[in-house]
Amino acid sequence: MACMAASVGKQAIILAPRSAPEAKVAQLLTYGAKVVLVNGSYDDAFDLSIAASMEFGWYNRNTGFNPFTVEGKKTAGVEIWEQVIRNLPTGQDLNVFIPVGDGNILSGVAKGFIDLLSLGWIEKLPRLIGVQAEGSAAIATAFHNNSDTIEAVKAVTIADSISVDLPRDGTRALKRVRESGGFFVTVSDQEILSAIPELGRAGLFVEPAAAAAYAGLQKSLEKNLIDPAAPTLVLATGSGLKDIKSVMRTVMPAPIIEPELKSLKEVLGV
Amino acid sequence: MACMAASVGKQAIILAPRSAPEAKVAQLLTYGAKVVLVNGSYDDAFDLSIAASMEFGWYNRNTGFNPFTVEGKKTAGVEIWEQVIRNLPTGQDLNVFIPVGDGNILSGVAKGFIDLLSLGWIEKLPRLIGVQAEGSAAIATAFHNNSDTIEAVKAVTIADSISVDLPRDGTRALKRVRESGGFFVTVSDQEILSAIPELGRAGLFVEPAAAAAYAGLQKSLEKNLIDPAAPTLVLATGSGLKDIKSVMRTVMPAPIIEPELKSLKEVLGV
Repeated sequence: MACMAASVGKQAIILAPRSAPEAKVAQLLTYGAKVVLVNGSYDDAFDLSIAASMEFGWYNRNTGFNPFTVEGKKTAGVEIWEQVIRNLPTGQDLNVFIPVGDGNILSGVAKGFIDLLSLGWIEKLPRLIGVQAEGSAAIATAFHNNSDTIEAVKAVTIADSISVDLPRDGTRALKRVRESGGFFVTVSDQEILSAIPELGRAGLFVEPAAAAAYAGLQKSLEKNLIDPAAPTLVLATGSGLKDIKSVMRTVMPAPIIEPELKSLKEVLGV
Repeated sequence: MACMAASVGKQAIILAPRSAPEAKVAQLLTYGAKVVLVNGSYDDAFDLSIAASMEFGWYNRNTGFNPFTVEGKKTAGVEIWEQVIRNLPTGQDLNVFIPVGDGNILSGVAKGFIDLLSLGWIEKLPRLIGVQAEGSAAIATAFHNNSDTIEAVKAVTIADSISVDLPRDGTRALKRVRESGGFFVTVSDQEILSAIPELGRAGLFVEPAAAAAYAGLQKSLEKNLIDPAAPTLVLATGSGLKDIKSVMRTVMPAPIIEPELKSLKEVLGV
C-alpha cells in the first residue's frame, strides 16, 4: 500500500499495532507513509482506521473491508491454476494450505478458483485448508463447532500477520472452506517456529505466518486428515526478512572467531 | 549461496565480518548454513575463506575469486539489454550506474554487454559508471589517478555490501569502466543515507549499497558529468529489508498513540 501510494504520489496513512515487526514499519516509513503505531492490538488499529476513514473521508484499503483486496488476492488462485492445477493428471485434486488471520487471502484465492470454475477451466474447487495459530483461531473454532457464527478471541501468537481477535473476512473464508470440502487446522507457536528452519533447509526463508501453513500441512499429515500421496500446495505468504526477531528464535546464533585458520578449525570441529 | 546449497542438500560454510547486518546473518542461518562471524573486516573474512578452502579442499564461491560469479552476474547485463537498451532510439547511448565494492557486479554486467557486442546485438558498450563509498574507494582512487594499480584502503562505510579494503575484482572493473568511456564517482555515507528515503518516495525500498548508485547519479548530475537528457539506468542491488538499522537512521520513528480518534487527530494535526 505504502509502496503503491509512493509510486503515484499519493499520501498513505498507515495504522499498525505497536507490536508490528521493526522491518515492516521501517519499510512503510521509507516509502513516505505517515505511520501511526497504536498502543493496542491489530483489531484496535483496524477499528481506528475505520473510524478515521469515516471522520476524514479517507479511502480505506483495509483487508477484508475494502472489496478490491479479494480481487487483487484472487490472482494468486489464478497463478496456482496456471502453474500447478492445469498440469495435474485428470482426476487429481489439489490440497491448498493457506495461513488465515482475517481470512482475506483464503477468500481471495477461493475467488480466483470460483472465477475459473465459472469459466469452465476447472471442474471443481481445489480443497482449501485454512491454517490458524492456536492463539488466534476464531474461524477454526467456528468450523470445528459446526457454527456459522465467528466469535472474537483475544489473539496471542508470534505470527503477527495472522494475529487477529475478530477476523474481518471470516464468514466468507469459513463458507469457502466448507464449499471446497476442506477444513481448518490450528498450530502452536512452537510448531510455527519449528517450521521456519525446516523450510529454510529446503531453500525457503519465511516469516512466522507463512511457516504456519507448512506447520498445518505437517499436522494434517500426522492426523491423517489428507492423503500423503495427494498433490498439495502450501502458500508461503511472507519473507523471513520481515521478522528477523522471530526467525532468530529458531536458530543458534553464529559464533564469532578471530580471523585465523586455527580458530575456524576449532569452531567447526574440522 | 546458502539458499542454493539448502535446495540441493549441500552444506554451505559462510564466513562474514562480525559487522554484517542481522537480517543477512539470520537468513544464512535459517537456510542451514554454518555461519562463522569473523572479528575483523570483510577482507579478513575473505582471506580466511581462501585459506580454509586451500586447507580443507572446499569449493570457494567467493565474489571475484570464483570465475562463475561474473558469468552469473552477466545476466543482469543481458536483462538490461532486453528490457531497456533494445527499446532505445538508435544512436542513444545508455549510462549505467553500478555500486562497486569488489567490482564483481560491474565486471559481470560488463561481461553481459561484451557478449552482446560479440554477437553483434549491440554496436557499442553502454557507459559504465562505478559508484563507490568515499570510505571504500580503492578503485575510484586508481581511476582518478590514471593508475592501473589499485591500492588497499581501510574501508569505513555504512554500506556494508560495498565495504572492502582491497577490491577482489578491481583490476577488471577498472578496465571495463575505461573501455566503456565511463568513470568512477564517490559518495559520502550521508549522501547514501539521504538517497534511501528519496528512493522510497519513488516506490523503491533499498539497502545502503543500492542507494549509493542513486547518490552517484545525483552527484554526476551536480558535477555535469553526464547529460541530464541521456537515458540512464541505476542498478539497485539490495532490498532495504536486509539492513533495517541503517534504514531507520534515515526516517523519523513512527509515533505511538492510544487507539482513539482524538489521539490520531493530534498526532496527524488534522
